[in-house]
Amino acid sequence: MPESASAKSDCIICKILDGTEPASFVYRDDQCAAFMDIQPVNEGHLLVVPKDHAPFMEDLDAESAAHLMRVAHKLTGAVRASGIRCEGINLFLADGEAAGQEVFHVHLHLFPRYEGDGFGLRFGPHYKKRPRVELDETARQIREALNEKSGAKGPV
Amino acid sequence: MPESASAKSDCIICKILDGTEPASFVYRDDQCAAFMDIQPVNEGHLLVVPKDHAPFMEDLDAESAAHLMRVAHKLTGAVRASGIRCEGINLFLADGEAAGQEVFHVHLHLFPRYEGDGFGLRFGPHYKKRPRVELDETARQIREALNEKSGAKGPV
Repeated sequence: MPESASAKSDCIICKILDGTEPASFVYRDDQCAAFMDIQPVNEGHLLVVPKDHAPFMEDLDAESAAHLMRVAHKLTGAVRASGIRCEGINLFLADGEAAGQEVFHVHLHLFPRYEGDGFGLRFGPHYKKRPRVELDETARQIREALNEKSGAKGPV
Repeated sequence: MPESASAKSDCIICKILDGTEPASFVYRDDQCAAFMDIQPVNEGHLLVVPKDHAPFMEDLDAESAAHLMRVAHKLTGAVRASGIRCEGINLFLADGEAAGQEVFHVHLHLFPRYEGDGFGLRFGPHYKKRPRVELDETARQIREALNEKSGAKGPV
């Protein structure tokens, strides 16, 4: 990824937020905003974004991340009540190019779903049930990293 | 969906939380928990769940929803630091059968991703750029529903 890809000056989401690029807004508060994705998976596809430029989750503080979900929760109810075709909803976030992130300002997708809409997840060859011993070992590694980050010691 | 599918008494996640079914936990607090998905998309696939039974997003209060993301944000850093193969992360939530929900207790997926892992999104025939006038009209419908829900009137 070129260095400029995550720079605020080149960020399309920052330009939308400051009004220099157009968007169809549904919500704004002092921490975040939500507007229509220009290329919707289905009608009603929204992006919920933090107001301040943050290329990746690690650039966002925990409270700003939590607020994205607080707003997505509210919008979930609104989209379901709006009359737009919506039998279910997916929330999706890609953090990093390897996860499919293309715009380097954190954004939480909300897409309305309905039976037969053609959208779905494509699973790779690693998708299979794992033995408990393997899951326990992976959990141990993650707990260890979590404890190191938080400075905590001891079991969960 | 049979009525029992969303009942607490039949809920596998509630059984995991009360210890009657096994799971490999990485995190617990008084509002939520996180444990390994038994059938991971990739190694390190976690589920972050509210402690109290809530089949759908509408059954969850806004603060409990926000807390799922607060914890997912923390776990994103831990998984990246854990040594598990992880070049990126996806967060994913399915609300409703039409959105692919299979277990009727809200759960936020966190999957580690890496180049060539084979996982991805499958887009349907509706996935294309839309004209601004259409996006504006959809945004208007959602704002209206949002205002009706919140009792607020007036522009965003």
